[in-house]
Amino acid sequence: MTDCEGEGPLELYEQLTAQGDRVRALKTAKAEKAEVDAAVQLLLQLKVDYKQVTGQDYKAGSPPSENSVAPDNRPATEGADDEDTVDPWNVSTTNAKGVDYDKLIVRFGSSKIDQELVDRIEKVSGQRPHHFLRRGIFFSHRDMHQVLDAYEKQKSFYLYTGRGPSSEAMHVGHLIPFIFTKWLQDVFDIPLVIQLTDDEKYLWKDLSLEECQRFAVENAKDIIACGFDVNKTFIFSDLGYMGACPEFYRNVVKVQKHVTFNQVKGIFGFTDSDCIGKISFPAIQAAPSFSSSFPKIFGSRKDVQCLIPCAIDQDPYFRMTRDVAPRIGYLKPALLHSTFFPALQGAQTKMSASDANSSIFLTDTPKQIKNKINKHAFSGGKDTVEEHRKYGGNPDVDVSFMYLTFFLEDDEQLEKIKQDYASGALLTGELKKILTELLQPMISQHQEQRKQVTEETVQQFIDLKKAHH
Amino acid sequence: MTDCEGEGPLELYEQLTAQGDRVRALKTAKAEKAEVDAAVQLLLQLKVDYKQVTGQDYKAGSPPSENSVAPDNRPATEGADDEDTVDPWNVSTTNAKGVDYDKLIVRFGSSKIDQELVDRIEKVSGQRPHHFLRRGIFFSHRDMHQVLDAYEKQKSFYLYTGRGPSSEAMHVGHLIPFIFTKWLQDVFDIPLVIQLTDDEKYLWKDLSLEECQRFAVENAKDIIACGFDVNKTFIFSDLGYMGACPEFYRNVVKVQKHVTFNQVKGIFGFTDSDCIGKISFPAIQAAPSFSSSFPKIFGSRKDVQCLIPCAIDQDPYFRMTRDVAPRIGYLKPALLHSTFFPALQGAQTKMSASDANSSIFLTDTPKQIKNKINKHAFSGGKDTVEEHRKYGGNPDVDVSFMYLTFFLEDDEQLEKIKQDYASGALLTGELKKILTELLQPMISQHQEQRKQVTEETVQQFIDLKKAHH
Repeated sequence: MTDCEGEGPLELYEQLTAQGDRVRALKTAKAEKAEVDAAVQLLLQLKVDYKQVTGQDYKAGSPPSENSVAPDNRPATEGADDEDTVDPWNVSTTNAKGVDYDKLIVRFGSSKIDQELVDRIEKVSGQRPHHFLRRGIFFSHRDMHQVLDAYEKQKSFYLYTGRGPSSEAMHVGHLIPFIFTKWLQDVFDIPLVIQLTDDEKYLWKDLSLEECQRFAVENAKDIIACGFDVNKTFIFSDLGYMGACPEFYRNVVKVQKHVTFNQVKGIFGFTDSDCIGKISFPAIQAAPSFSSSFPKIFGSRKDVQCLIPCAIDQDPYFRMTRDVAPRIGYLKPALLHSTFFPALQGAQTKMSASDANSSIFLTDTPKQIKNKINKHAFSGGKDTVEEHRKYGGNPDVDVSFMYLTFFLEDDEQLEKIKQDYASGALLTGELKKILTELLQPMISQHQEQRKQVTEETVQQFIDLKKAHH
Repeated sequence: MTDCEGEGPLELYEQLTAQGDRVRALKTAKAEKAEVDAAVQLLLQLKVDYKQVTGQDYKAGSPPSENSVAPDNRPATEGADDEDTVDPWNVSTTNAKGVDYDKLIVRFGSSKIDQELVDRIEKVSGQRPHHFLRRGIFFSHRDMHQVLDAYEKQKSFYLYTGRGPSSEAMHVGHLIPFIFTKWLQDVFDIPLVIQLTDDEKYLWKDLSLEECQRFAVENAKDIIACGFDVNKTFIFSDLGYMGACPEFYRNVVKVQKHVTFNQVKGIFGFTDSDCIGKISFPAIQAAPSFSSSFPKIFGSRKDVQCLIPCAIDQDPYFRMTRDVAPRIGYLKPALLHSTFFPALQGAQTKMSASDANSSIFLTDTPKQIKNKINKHAFSGGKDTVEEHRKYGGNPDVDVSFMYLTFFLEDDEQLEKIKQDYASGALLTGELKKILTELLQPMISQHQEQRKQVTEETVQQFIDLKKAHH
């Protein structure tokens, strides 16, 4: 999939020219049809992008003129859906409000989490829905009604989520699926498996196996600090579990037999130059969706329904999994999708663990938190206090306000802040102060809880032998 | 591998021209170095083939002339090398004597096992070379001199061989690598690992995981019946060992990171329609070439040299392995290649486990053995006794005689049979009787030894915990 981040008209023009050359070269060389088709498809996509960005059709040999920006691509609040890129490795949009999630639901073929579903979760669980549900942070699902139908008939299910341990440092955005998963575990009282894809990170990044395994252990500590029940939670890294459970590899091979290179090429955008590890990896992320991958938890039961809470960018893996499941005699996993957590600089991109200023890290001090929010959090406020008081700010593009929707639990307080900010009664500095004073104790508390997670605690979570029920 | 079957000078010329275009196109398109290198390598190989077929150097724009066929490539009883197909799934030739192995050595870039090497093995081991070595049944090698150099300096090595358990029934041809490996183990007193690729058979055949695992156990019994030393031999199936040894999966992932789809496409002929399991499988056959895949045998030693005795059709896996090894900090495995065991019907193809009449199975009764040899073994004799007495038979294409070269240990007796058959003194029926009377007790003895292999014995061979030294 193309990475659209930060591409101007000239970069696009140059990409288009290079891609045109490549297509001609492939045709001359009588390359395989699939290869030529893929190259042509990318070329066409680039042409669409070019037209959108410049408002002009691409012409070989004539670079874009200075003022060639399409009207609907001038910095504006309403962005074009076609520019949203969402896959496991790239998320980008030109819209300051972030990705258009309603259009994503249509594109991915999932279902919206509507009020009816939220009400039903409340009824079945007997608990007030988590604010991530109330506020549409978990906004999309697959088969959640089926999960609830079964649960009402005393057929239980299990939860599966995960993380790619690409570095020691996790940021607050990484906690979203875990915070929500813990809520689901508490409310439904069900087992949970957490996959740390250290093998994936080894395959994708310039890291050694040892580094990836170390990151997995460090990340596990942050995850455990979220408060999971050790008796109902199994955390595993692929590099460890693959060599400890033959049933897991059996399921990996089953998936690998039923997915072709053509399919992963279409779903993940792999090319012939990708290593064979990347190409077969999707089967490893698929396998935990089947209860038979965890005989120590589920015994010989192959029919325990799986529910996966995850960010929407992971959906391609599970679209593939759901396609394969019935062909190998397994249940399709159900899904709950979250929106992306915005970078401090704005909702156009997901946060990056490699840029310390793009987000609040779980290791930040109170002072760092304050400075980052004050310096880097994109503001929807006006340029002067006078203007702000007169016209009000825009909470829809204000990152501090967005962060509050994630972490401030009180609905009334949040609504009041929104109205005050929009009316101009609340200034940007004041809004930032509210967020700072919410996050500082939250992060400190996380750090306290993490300190209490010893190597021994980690061992308890990854212990295969413990009884999970 | 390119499938050279039936390629004439003109087809080769056209392929070469297209490949030249392709290389230029890739360079123009600034394709990745690995991709360009692979294309260039294929181009060079095609040029070598072209020269061999036409006796001329390739010149762009000048197609081959009618009579441009190299003297040694004219259609003749001496079959054209270009028609031999040798890869892990296909072996075929139009030559009744079988594949042209000298040409295969040139094509694969391996080295001939010459008299000097046979003598050296005798000197280093202090044992008379096995008749498979004396008679050129193991005919090709990679780095065997290095293995012997190191062995002379007290640096030991280990043996690795394997089998794809595609059915319960093994035939006598399947025993060749095991008979020879046992001899090597006895003579050099070294550890041996035997891989049963039940995952491969699941991926390639219409079989269930359970069937493949069952075949692996049944085949293990036949292998054990060859007499391997339980204290120095570890037998494992992929579906079992992958889930029992994290170090094995670590090495699989290391290989998978360093091999692209382009490379396996070039080596194994995979296409975009192949499943991702097939595409990544070569890494699983590669991993046992590294001693760190067996921590229970070698502890933390990553530098124990591996020697792989196998049929030449498995070489593509190990060419790939040898290419990857230095890039992941491991030693390249050395190899000893055997010729193919001919089908009863003739040396044009390898035997097929699915055709009961194509070979002698390890489960055949003395009567079945006699009938199969009499009915199906292709004869190099003349049509009538009179003609045969007058002109003699042709032992080079006679399958009964070929089988004797594999199983009759006495060199003098074999030579006398050959001369008598060529002179006409020995009739086809008499030759068949000699083979029958050799194989009947051999197979019966194998069946006796196999009967003594209990499930418990199998467990001893696959036991990870036993001390191997």
